Amino acid sequence: MQFVHDTLAQRVRFASGAAAEGLAAEVAALGARRVMVIAGASEEKPAERITAGLPVAHRHHEVVMHVPVEVADRARAAAVERDVDALVSVGGGSTTGLAKAVALTTGLPIIAVPTTYAGSEATAVWGMTENSVKTTGSDPKVLPRTIVYDAALTLTLPVELSVASGLNALAHCVDSLWAPRADPVNQALAIEGAWALGVGLPLVAAEPDALEGREKALYGAYLSAAAFASAGSGLHHKICHVLGGMFNLPHAQTHAVVLPYVLAFNAPGVPGAEQRLAAALDAPSASEGLARLCERLRAPRSLRDLGMPADGIADAAQAVVAAAPAGNPRPVTLDAITDLVRSAWEGTDAP
Amino acid sequence: MQFVHDTLAQRVRFASGAAAEGLAAEVAALGARRVMVIAGASEEKPAERITAGLPVAHRHHEVVMHVPVEVADRARAAAVERDVDALVSVGGGSTTGLAKAVALTTGLPIIAVPTTYAGSEATAVWGMTENSVKTTGSDPKVLPRTIVYDAALTLTLPVELSVASGLNALAHCVDSLWAPRADPVNQALAIEGAWALGVGLPLVAAEPDALEGREKALYGAYLSAAAFASAGSGLHHKICHVLGGMFNLPHAQTHAVVLPYVLAFNAPGVPGAEQRLAAALDAPSASEGLARLCERLRAPRSLRDLGMPADGIADAAQAVVAAAPAGNPRPVTLDAITDLVRSAWEGTDAP
Repeated sequence: MQFVHDTLAQRVRFASGAAAEGLAAEVAALGARRVMVIAGASEEKPAERITAGLPVAHRHHEVVMHVPVEVADRARAAAVERDVDALVSVGGGSTTGLAKAVALTTGLPIIAVPTTYAGSEATAVWGMTENSVKTTGSDPKVLPRTIVYDAALTLTLPVELSVASGLNALAHCVDSLWAPRADPVNQALAIEGAWALGVGLPLVAAEPDALEGREKALYGAYLSAAAFASAGSGLHHKICHVLGGMFNLPHAQTHAVVLPYVLAFNAPGVPGAEQRLAAALDAPSASEGLARLCERLRAPRSLRDLGMPADGIADAAQAVVAAAPAGNPRPVTLDAITDLVRSAWEGTDAP
Repeated sequence: MQFVHDTLAQRVRFASGAAAEGLAAEVAALGARRVMVIAGASEEKPAERITAGLPVAHRHHEVVMHVPVEVADRARAAAVERDVDALVSVGGGSTTGLAKAVALTTGLPIIAVPTTYAGSEATAVWGMTENSVKTTGSDPKVLPRTIVYDAALTLTLPVELSVASGLNALAHCVDSLWAPRADPVNQALAIEGAWALGVGLPLVAAEPDALEGREKALYGAYLSAAAFASAGSGLHHKICHVLGGMFNLPHAQTHAVVLPYVLAFNAPGVPGAEQRLAAALDAPSASEGLARLCERLRAPRSLRDLGMPADGIADAAQAVVAAAPAGNPRPVTLDAITDLVRSAWEGTDAP
């Protein structure tokens, strides 16, 4: 047993229907008097409702996917101009991401209210795009001081999007098990997150208006992000990154298709983690548990269906091997990855 | 699901035989140039060995149980006089506790090298005694920046002491499950800690010179402290505190005797946690798992054997009920606690 594990300081408030109270308490704890609320158009109404009691100095609504630099610059300028002393973000990954971009240059504290399972709220990673090129970095300044989770705010997230976002979170948990900085602590968080998502997502799909599944899924998404931020990016994310970049495939769906094949490939290399994941998914094997879950959630099955061309398999495999993460539990050979990508392209039965 | 969970910022380095390298890296990361090494007489030699490469400005050897104020004052004066810029503690709870007392007034950062399963290194709680009265408090300043775990340093901890210290750590895990601030996150850490201690302690008892059991036990002790610091003190610790204070019983042994009875009492009130603890201890029920573990470790069985008088049961039960922690999953009535304490006094079979 050998590891270095950094735990990040953060408060998590989890209470359905209590975002307004949670925000009021946290803004008071910061002693903030001029809050900037960041929420995109789709979150404008719930954001207004839960921040009605706060000392709001500015409401910022320009939220754009992947945080373009010019959008970040306008938000930063607004924060300075209005003499803001705290940021409250209400929304998914792009909204949290914009708040982080503002925190990066201003040092302002963030209170994040997530409305999807993206998980950005539990990491110190920021990202911005300029001329279609994404730059990312990690800085303790951008880690939200507090996360206010209110599952009631996720009730309006459509089932299909919930499932896609939830499977993306599950991929964070699974990929954490063999990622470069995987350690027993983040592994325990990942397994707990996989359990919560495995229980929560089918409930969300079956009863989208009930809180129970939403709470479990949101809790699982938090853990998935905490585990992933700690363990780093493993083989699964490298593969999805390569495929997404080469063939412009949809992000969450690509994760859902590829994950079972990476799990089948790596599982023999991490027998202990495989057993614990199997138990978390309540199945005789981790692969069977994941297959059952994907089946229940009607997740997409093949890269072919997502629009990847057959003649891209060889190039993709080569690019994956070139970018293989350190310490993968099984050798990332060209043959193995070609087989893996071909199986995922065909959508053959869960291996 | 409703909770507020505060995660504390801390680095954990875990590598057997690598304390010297770990300390060198962490002292360098702090930019420290005048280190004060705190280690009691029994840890003097290993402490000298693992700190030989550090820029040591002062070695402090006066370590006394429960950190008497005058001992703390002398250590504080030494830190100021020698113009120290970082503290390195090598030892058990009293040693870490002395470093915390120095940090409390000086703000100096601590790097803790624990040699027992006491767990103080993972909490922001400090304690000092003056005229036999113990004062405790919590302050972020005293939380060690980094813990350097080196299981090789625990090989010299005698089996009996290892078992007692380990069962004390297990009590932290179990009591966390129903403590006032118990939440799903610290519960997951507690269950992981119980698993590691349940696997590690019998290995330590069977093969004290092997690293495997020592590593698992040390890892479990870390998690037990992290979980307990977050969840707070539950019914078990209130009972042990009352018994210890009234009858001057030995700390760790009292925990070992009482824990099975508190678990049996509270388990029906926390069925989910009970199941997870059972799984962690690889037994059909949590109580059976704990009974088997205590049996294998030859833990003491009765308060009578520890010297508690029979006529103290009634007074003890009253004192426990008066101090009952908030939110215990079952009502803490005088009848119930009298039964519990009597059973623990008699050492009747695990309930």
